[in-house]
Formats: sequence, structure tokens, C-alpha cells
Amino acid sequence: MNTLPTSLTNLIDELSLLPGVGKKTAQRLAFYLLKTDRDNIQSLSRAINDLQDGVVQCNTCGGFSEESICKICLDPNRNDMVLCIVENAQDIFVFEKVNLFDGKYHVLGGSLSPLDGIGPDDLNIKKLMDRVKMGMEVVIATNPTVEGETTALFLSNTFKEMDIKVTRIARGIPVGGDLEYTDEATIIRALEGRTLF
Amino acid sequence: MNTLPTSLTNLIDELSLLPGVGKKTAQRLAFYLLKTDRDNIQSLSRAINDLQDGVVQCNTCGGFSEESICKICLDPNRNDMVLCIVENAQDIFVFEKVNLFDGKYHVLGGSLSPLDGIGPDDLNIKKLMDRVKMGMEVVIATNPTVEGETTALFLSNTFKEMDIKVTRIARGIPVGGDLEYTDEATIIRALEGRTLF
Repeated sequence: MNTLPTSLTNLIDELSLLPGVGKKTAQRLAFYLLKTDRDNIQSLSRAINDLQDGVVQCNTCGGFSEESICKICLDPNRNDMVLCIVENAQDIFVFEKVNLFDGKYHVLGGSLSPLDGIGPDDLNIKKLMDRVKMGMEVVIATNPTVEGETTALFLSNTFKEMDIKVTRIARGIPVGGDLEYTDEATIIRALEGRTLF
Repeated sequence: MNTLPTSLTNLIDELSLLPGVGKKTAQRLAFYLLKTDRDNIQSLSRAINDLQDGVVQCNTCGGFSEESICKICLDPNRNDMVLCIVENAQDIFVFEKVNLFDGKYHVLGGSLSPLDGIGPDDLNIKKLMDRVKMGMEVVIATNPTVEGETTALFLSNTFKEMDIKVTRIARGIPVGGDLEYTDEATIIRALEGRTLF
């Protein structure tokens, strides 16, 4: 290890900090970068350095944006009466990729977790309340985890008193999945959520 | 896709160019970096940018080095009479990690591949010839691929005429591997290379 140049071990250490990147992957990437064109190296370095300068939080939905209001919130072609609630800003991207949802989004910035001391006041719920209006459909798209389900339940209870249609994205066997390797909680959800053929 | 800030898509594109990093991994890393401390971001960016400045090729062995001659070549405690020949500079690192080999190294910079037009003159063989001396052991540690084996054969033929002991690293079933999933070529090598218990 001590036979490697310092700049190489530096980069290996830095890369190892990334999620899903172990020591071995970090080494492979560093060795690859060592042989890469200097121009490509610099543009990667710059892209990392410039990342955060070019991204702010949308004042309306809490998603990633270049301006104070994001492109989705400003888009006049999107349906103002359907609001999809997600835990994190990157979840918006997951839905946008499939190009099926034409409503707008709201980012909670996490999920309710009493054990970690995260209550409703720690989430972006006050702004959400300002956005919901009568006759609207709210699609709760928090993760199908304990925290996500707790948050979904809390929100649906909150909205019940208002004239709002609250829906929850379907949980079930993932497409391409295998029944044999599916956990029991998912099987239960899949059965409960069965639809007419 | 077009709803993401430009600096984010820029970085995703840059990261996707790395080996083993697909679009999904690039996205995950970019989203992670977006939430990371600005200091950590900058030190990663700097480590990438500074990488190549701090690394040159050792004039003797062709390995990675900070000075014109690398630490291994300069080390007086290492055995000058055993020379391990590897294809690439990062292969040195693989052997150094196990801390078993106390000889020196020589990097070929590739392997013979007539189909790709890579002949002996394209490899770092001239310098190798200057380094081998009578009574020396040369350990050929090229990869167990067609090209690596061709190179090993070529080198061993070259050294045969000189008073040099030529050895080849063992090929066989990897430790922890499973016979059932081992290819036939490896099985043959493992049988041929069997040793006394």
C-alpha cells in the first residue's frame, strides 16, 4: 500500500467514501482515471465541484431546481389538481422517468420516525397544507417501509377531514420478480391489492 | 430527465463514463454528492484533478511512482535477483498487498496480441532485457488469458537461451471457488498443476 503514490492513495480514500464504493472499486476507478485523458479528468473534477452551485431547492415543491421555482412547478401543461407526495427530491426523478404522471410533486424531506425523533414538524408539511385545495387528488408515494407507511397513514388521516381524494401507490410483487423470493409482507400487500383481470 | 438541473445531469453524464458505473449508479452517486458537505465535495474534486500530476512512470520498472524511480526499485531490502513480470502497473499493487513477494517488478505495459497488432516491440521488453542477469529468477505473472499466456510463452522462450530460471504463477481453482462453476480450461490447469499434499 505504501508503495503507491500519495495522489493515488488520496483519490482512493476519497472515492471509498462514496456509497456503494468499496476499497476495490475505488482502486479500479482510480487506476482507470490515471490512464484517462487529462481533459476528461478535469471535466469530471469540475462537474463534481460545480454540482452544488447549480442546484437549489424549489421554493414550492422542495425538489431540485436551478431557479427558485422548478421547471415542473412552473409548467402550465401539468395538472394542478393532482399532487404526488414523495419523501426525497430524487424520488421525483423516478416518476418523471416513466413519463406517466402529469401532476405536480411535493417533497417531504424524509419520513416520520418517532424512534429517530422525526415528527411532523420536521417534515415539509406546513407548505404542503398551503398547497392542497378542495377537489384535489393527493397521491401518497412515500416508500413502502415502516416509516413511509407511518407517514402515509398520518397524511391520509390529516387529509380525511378535508374534501380531498387521497390515494396510495400500489405495493406488490415487482415486475420481473419471483414469488418464491418475495417476502411475506409483500405477498400480503399483493393479495390485498389484487385487481380485476 | 429534462426536469433535472444541468449541473446534476452534467455530473451524471461524467460519472457514467467511469468503468462499471452505469446510469443508475451515476445517479445514485450524484444525488449522494448533492447532499454531501461542500468541503468533502471539493476534496474529492481536487483529488481527481491532482491525481495525474502526482504520478509518473518509474524509469526502471514502469510502475506508478512519485519520483523518476519508484520506492520498490530503490528499496535496498528487496531481492534484486527475483523479477516479477506483470502486464500492467496496477498488477504490482495486487502482489504488494499480500506482502509475500520481496523481489522487484517489471511492467510490460500490455500483452502480445497479434490480432490487435501488438508485437514484442510495443511492449516494455527492451528495458526488461537490460534488467535480467545471470542466475536470476524471472516470475512471469501475466494474466491467465490467451494474450497473457502467449506473452508468457514468448518471454520464457526468450529467456531459455540465457542462464535464467523462468517460473509462471500457478493457475487453478480460486480459493473459495466452486468446482461446479469452474470453467474447463481452469480445471485442466488445476489438474496439470496439482502439487503433493
